[in-house]
Amino acid sequence: MEYVKNFNVRNERNLTMLVDFYELTMGNGYFLNGIENKIAYFDMFFRRVPDGGGYCIVAGLQQLIEYLNNLSFSKEDIDYLRNKNIFSEEFLNYLKNFKFCCDVWAIPEGTPVFPNEPLVTVRGPIIQAQFLETMILLSINHQTLIATKANRICNAADGRPVMEFGSRRAQGYDGAIYGARAAIIGGCNSTACTIAEQMFGVPAAGTMAHSWVQLFPTEYDAFKTWAEVYPDNCVLLLDTYNVLKSGLPNAIKIFNEVLQPKGHRPKGIRLDSGDITYLSQKCREVLDEAGYEDVKIIVSNSLDEYIIRSVLRQGAKIDGFGVGERLITARSEPVFGGVYKLVAVEEDEKIISKIKISENEEKITNPGFKKVYRIFDKETNKAIADLITLEDEVIDESKSLTLFDPVFTWKKKKIKNFYVKELMVQIFDKGKLIYDSPSVIEISKVVDEECKKLWHEVLRFENPHNYYVDLSLKLWSLKHNLINQYSNIYNEEE
Amino acid sequence: MEYVKNFNVRNERNLTMLVDFYELTMGNGYFLNGIENKIAYFDMFFRRVPDGGGYCIVAGLQQLIEYLNNLSFSKEDIDYLRNKNIFSEEFLNYLKNFKFCCDVWAIPEGTPVFPNEPLVTVRGPIIQAQFLETMILLSINHQTLIATKANRICNAADGRPVMEFGSRRAQGYDGAIYGARAAIIGGCNSTACTIAEQMFGVPAAGTMAHSWVQLFPTEYDAFKTWAEVYPDNCVLLLDTYNVLKSGLPNAIKIFNEVLQPKGHRPKGIRLDSGDITYLSQKCREVLDEAGYEDVKIIVSNSLDEYIIRSVLRQGAKIDGFGVGERLITARSEPVFGGVYKLVAVEEDEKIISKIKISENEEKITNPGFKKVYRIFDKETNKAIADLITLEDEVIDESKSLTLFDPVFTWKKKKIKNFYVKELMVQIFDKGKLIYDSPSVIEISKVVDEECKKLWHEVLRFENPHNYYVDLSLKLWSLKHNLINQYSNIYNEEE
Repeated sequence: MEYVKNFNVRNERNLTMLVDFYELTMGNGYFLNGIENKIAYFDMFFRRVPDGGGYCIVAGLQQLIEYLNNLSFSKEDIDYLRNKNIFSEEFLNYLKNFKFCCDVWAIPEGTPVFPNEPLVTVRGPIIQAQFLETMILLSINHQTLIATKANRICNAADGRPVMEFGSRRAQGYDGAIYGARAAIIGGCNSTACTIAEQMFGVPAAGTMAHSWVQLFPTEYDAFKTWAEVYPDNCVLLLDTYNVLKSGLPNAIKIFNEVLQPKGHRPKGIRLDSGDITYLSQKCREVLDEAGYEDVKIIVSNSLDEYIIRSVLRQGAKIDGFGVGERLITARSEPVFGGVYKLVAVEEDEKIISKIKISENEEKITNPGFKKVYRIFDKETNKAIADLITLEDEVIDESKSLTLFDPVFTWKKKKIKNFYVKELMVQIFDKGKLIYDSPSVIEISKVVDEECKKLWHEVLRFENPHNYYVDLSLKLWSLKHNLINQYSNIYNEEE
Repeated sequence: MEYVKNFNVRNERNLTMLVDFYELTMGNGYFLNGIENKIAYFDMFFRRVPDGGGYCIVAGLQQLIEYLNNLSFSKEDIDYLRNKNIFSEEFLNYLKNFKFCCDVWAIPEGTPVFPNEPLVTVRGPIIQAQFLETMILLSINHQTLIATKANRICNAADGRPVMEFGSRRAQGYDGAIYGARAAIIGGCNSTACTIAEQMFGVPAAGTMAHSWVQLFPTEYDAFKTWAEVYPDNCVLLLDTYNVLKSGLPNAIKIFNEVLQPKGHRPKGIRLDSGDITYLSQKCREVLDEAGYEDVKIIVSNSLDEYIIRSVLRQGAKIDGFGVGERLITARSEPVFGGVYKLVAVEEDEKIISKIKISENEEKITNPGFKKVYRIFDKETNKAIADLITLEDEVIDESKSLTLFDPVFTWKKKKIKNFYVKELMVQIFDKGKLIYDSPSVIEISKVVDEECKKLWHEVLRFENPHNYYVDLSLKLWSLKHNLINQYSNIYNEEE
């Protein structure tokens, strides 16, 4: 199946009004105060990797781009807002003639990313930059969550193919569709979600349900009919009645009596219930004895990275996994907590950095217009750390570089013999799209390549090594000056 | 805002291909064997209430109806399938001329429902009835999950309004949109998701973000500007810098200096971080002392039913809750495990019941074409139990009725002075829509009314009383005859 680039069967959908209502009330407020065109900078970032993991796989940018590139308000949208009786006609008129004009930078999909570094930065009139909050977060949060979970599951499967099977238990239609997209990015080799192949060119696959077996007078009849229809792609589901007493003997009869005589080789069997370690071992034995060493054993049934690792350690004989509800909902931690924060405004064409203070040190934002460097060791090509700097900072690769922990600043590390890569690329230039999105399959290759540059200790899915995301001295100083300003104001009486 | 019935800004979307791929391979298989028109019966049901709760609120039927009523394959869909090179032209031709012709029964949205009773039953040609699996499950699983979670949260809030705030953390765009719909059904009084008001006529609401406050030179300026723009709907967010030292004193200044002199009464304050029990108590004291006893305290920040109950028990002074990520993803248990199982086929116009066997007693399906009665006590109007019967059974309300536990059959209960209500209604008659969906607001009233008919013990959100879902004697006997048939086949050698 040829990949049809940017083919989107549903690109006609208007999601402009998928905004938190406060973005509209604030927009109206900016407008009425004549500050709608004040230039603001916002960062989208996250604070913590789900499931205690060591890294995330960023995803969802392509859908965000499609939204931003088509952002407009229909007559129905304007009429609806007018009916609320709280918006000024001037504001509604602005929306009617809305033309997206922001600059957007983002880390490309498939890149491993870490807490506190900007994944998306927006610069533009406050009335626009604020309006984008919900869709930026929703797009990146959802797909990053699922791509990250899929990557964990595929790592646990240790090279065996993982199929995404979760549509029926997804959280809504887009949960299934874009969840399948993110699962492929994260490492799944196929999905059961047919529309995802149409939309993204990712391979759709599937075999039979228990209902197919139930429909026929006997399991043997059901298998025979299937083998006759799909002789070259025959995977039989064995657990409708009893795997070892019925499903497996019937399957082998079908392989011997229906497929082999006509020169077709069976592809596999699937187990969807019971003790998969025990059953897969028994099935492997019987298949091997019958001369079907090449027939694959595929397993499904409420799997996730923990169960997969556990059954493989127990010696389960499994060649591939179908993973459903726990992948498509990221069941163990179903929320990706990305946030979108104001980090600067422009006044008289100067950038004034802004900070959001919190009692909780970790919740204090990194102020200013920034960029992110990934620093690689020249000899191993492994990533050493990420460094967040202000936008005008340049790293001289010919000199040594001193990194320091942003909290325990006496923890320092001097590095040399390194090279850096800027992680963010510009996506929109004053509203004009200047980025060409790769295909989903291309993005999944980025994941492979970029994860290879991380140390195994970071990739481990429990208690991983903490990858360093440091601040440049200039950014650190700016941040602490701003913190001190607020601290002086609110603690002066104490 | 007037409710615009059936207004769906996105009804142009074609989700026909949102199917698990095996539904297509099976369809092709039925077709090639000439059994595509065999009449089959499928039930959609669930086995367990999430979060250990006592009941679920069923939702999602309206979206399922819209899908079924518009089900057709586009030329692009057919071309895509042809390119897979595994489907016969006859099958593709069938899809090209697809005309939905199934009968569908369902329990109306908003009804409290229990494990093992059919929520949706489909009768029709196997090729069609099987094809619907993914969309029936996806539609009902998602919204039932969220409506049930919302209902738990609203119960914990004990009459205080709950606003749905989760769009940014939802699992995809539909997760936000239909999640907001389900949240309103479950009991939320409003949503921040603007498009949900457009689509479903449910109230959208929202105030300001921290970024509004950060944008101005001082918090006082930010509040002043807001109060001037929205004098009659002024809710101020107090925690950008420091609630008690800055946010609250500034808010009261604004109430005194900007709103009161012009005869406007402030509406509320919002707290989005910190210890909400302590802060809400302090804010209440200060507001009351300043003469603002009627100003509401609204709280948000990673809330769910457990935290809400806990802070209310501690004496938090809260008038309303904004609930985000933990509601919109049903974070504590984000999967609703509905299944869709073949329960019967027709042969020579007779119904032949089918069963799916499992080692696990609870996973054995209830066979046959069935209906569900809810039995009410005539005096209290409280629900006593649900009774699943075969379709041709009628309950005589004038006689006594003996219920028995389907596992521990010696546990019996004789009831009299009762009346029954059939829970399922017919939605499609041979493909023709014969059901008129109520509005979302009307459905949310159904939830209120029907939950009042349940005992408090069932509504409790931890360790609830187990509500009985029993089988009629006729159904129980059919089921056990079928189990014995399989048991004899697979255990004869032991």
